[in-house]
Amino acid sequence: MTAAAVFPAEEHRRRVGALQRVMAAEGIDAILLTTPPDVFYVTGFLTRFWESPARPWFVVVPADRDPVAVIPAIGEALMRRGWLRDVRTWDAPDPRDDGVSLLAAALRETLPPRGRLGAPMGLETHLRMPLGDYARLTHAIAPATVVDATAVVQRAREIKSEAEIAKIRAACAVADAAFARAPEFVGEGRGLDSVFRAFQVALLEAGADWVAYLAGGAGPDGYGDVISPADARPLAQGDVLMLDTGAVREGHFCDFNRNFAVGRAGDAARRAHAALFAATDAALAALRPGRRACDLHRALSDALRAEGAVPGGGRLGHGFGLSLTEWPSLTPLDETPLRAGMALTLEPSVEIAPGRFLVHEENLVLRDHGPELLSRRAPAELPVID
Amino acid sequence: MTAAAVFPAEEHRRRVGALQRVMAAEGIDAILLTTPPDVFYVTGFLTRFWESPARPWFVVVPADRDPVAVIPAIGEALMRRGWLRDVRTWDAPDPRDDGVSLLAAALRETLPPRGRLGAPMGLETHLRMPLGDYARLTHAIAPATVVDATAVVQRAREIKSEAEIAKIRAACAVADAAFARAPEFVGEGRGLDSVFRAFQVALLEAGADWVAYLAGGAGPDGYGDVISPADARPLAQGDVLMLDTGAVREGHFCDFNRNFAVGRAGDAARRAHAALFAATDAALAALRPGRRACDLHRALSDALRAEGAVPGGGRLGHGFGLSLTEWPSLTPLDETPLRAGMALTLEPSVEIAPGRFLVHEENLVLRDHGPELLSRRAPAELPVID
Repeated sequence: MTAAAVFPAEEHRRRVGALQRVMAAEGIDAILLTTPPDVFYVTGFLTRFWESPARPWFVVVPADRDPVAVIPAIGEALMRRGWLRDVRTWDAPDPRDDGVSLLAAALRETLPPRGRLGAPMGLETHLRMPLGDYARLTHAIAPATVVDATAVVQRAREIKSEAEIAKIRAACAVADAAFARAPEFVGEGRGLDSVFRAFQVALLEAGADWVAYLAGGAGPDGYGDVISPADARPLAQGDVLMLDTGAVREGHFCDFNRNFAVGRAGDAARRAHAALFAATDAALAALRPGRRACDLHRALSDALRAEGAVPGGGRLGHGFGLSLTEWPSLTPLDETPLRAGMALTLEPSVEIAPGRFLVHEENLVLRDHGPELLSRRAPAELPVID
Repeated sequence: MTAAAVFPAEEHRRRVGALQRVMAAEGIDAILLTTPPDVFYVTGFLTRFWESPARPWFVVVPADRDPVAVIPAIGEALMRRGWLRDVRTWDAPDPRDDGVSLLAAALRETLPPRGRLGAPMGLETHLRMPLGDYARLTHAIAPATVVDATAVVQRAREIKSEAEIAKIRAACAVADAAFARAPEFVGEGRGLDSVFRAFQVALLEAGADWVAYLAGGAGPDGYGDVISPADARPLAQGDVLMLDTGAVREGHFCDFNRNFAVGRAGDAARRAHAALFAATDAALAALRPGRRACDLHRALSDALRAEGAVPGGGRLGHGFGLSLTEWPSLTPLDETPLRAGMALTLEPSVEIAPGRFLVHEENLVLRDHGPELLSRRAPAELPVID
């Protein structure tokens, strides 16, 4: 009646072991996790129910034993089908006490009196529980204190296992198959909103469980904005259309895009696409474990400039996997070392004219010897759909 | 090239005026908003880009002037197409300072030295920014303090304007049209995962911009779990299939379900469906402004018992609109007064046997005279799909 676990218990035990080794090294007695990817990573609990903001969900990872789930009763059956044995529930939402006492009790069993509870609180994190309840929690566990565990979680999660890589590869294959069908739903006169809908249908038909993300844009020789919803403006001859998706299969994301010229490709768009392709090639050739995120940003920017193109602003790629985007960010400021097992996007962009861009994106996993593409490589030349 | 605003500026000005009146009454000098529905409510900023956890987004609503957006530069073009004139940006993600200084400066312009900054921190809320940055922010604005503004935001947001109701009605119509096509994709031998995909396709084809939520279950005479992803188990004669969706159109959600018997309907399932239908009728008849959420919970529970059914646990309905679920919760503990303009779901459930349920859900807006259905009423008898 309901889905089997995405991974066997051993996969999750291995992950918890990796977390616990870093916790021991950093003197952290337990970690509190509250977000969908963190909870899925440890427990295997996969549901779209997170879409409702009504209920918080808590997982405690002690330093020396199995995790404890402290969750709304509505999730108990699903959580118990996973590997966790210690599942504690309350009837949420409860305006008197929405799981705080239950969570505090679980933490007090785990933390020494002046122990250190880790929580992700750095860049790209948030605490998915009410701020008022967090204040009550810290009061309830005092004199134990809360410390930043962002690095603990990120260093563990960023190295994907072969089992995870297989799932991410399957999500990428879904998008590959849907992009291949673009000629069926892209063409002059088609509204961008209709293209967005048809592309989502193609993703589902290719095996996506759901389409968590779709962005894109279209305009003559490029686009100015890639985060807006689509409107009904019909595609015109010479437009470049870009579609970018985070399709989800078994809880794992892809995140890459493709560009298509409608009817004909203008010179500026063809040159920009060629520069993006060449810069991606250069970055793929340069990419090795030990380089830093900022090194890869420079490799992409330098290669674009060598092609005579103007790099767009913002980051030029990032991690991904259990969410649409993960750390690190390919920016000049991110010095995170790139390691074998990381799933990364390369996402260079070119500014063709003020406020007009072309963006190119591929997905890969970093191996000891260099990158292994997870997305089917985009064509070297901007494809034209008649 | 990109979507027109969902609402005219006047709609947002009216909303900000409503917020500011409550802020004045409660002595709150500014409010900080960080989540997709809160930001959309005030600014009209609508994007699927929230799916990426990489970047925080901030909107400050001062007590006496127009809001200020403090956002990553990648969102500037879209935000500036809306009504806000004061849009401040930084290149995110920035590991040195991810918008905190910029936000603190905007707040210091607005807050008196010992002023009160409101933030939602109660039930069903969270702060979508890193906890570490929140600590830096509170330090930077001291001696101003942060106070709970949950009620300020909820009392304003929970009363939908006619413009909002029209959008929610359109989202509900999308789901009505997709449910009507169930006989095309439901039947003995079809895998539940294939049904889930086909239903999402039907929602898109009916005009959903995207499908933010889909849950459901299937089993003989009822289902045990409604939050798991679907697996490939084929539907069998006598199964009851339930599909529940939050489809999104122009940023507005529906949230209702439908039940279908596969091949034939068993007695227990037919009786449960009839009881759910009757209880919903009773609640619709009893529903008036001035009743409380807990009163409606009792009306539903009592009506189910009068039908000889055992009410399921958990809440029996809730608000909805800008997110899949909103406050209040129809539970015995929620004393929120129901007011004209609220969009609500009625979601009674019946326990047929231990761990086996039937759930029924309708969407409505509360008017002065009582409820106006937004979903097409489910059939009185459990429909059978051959």
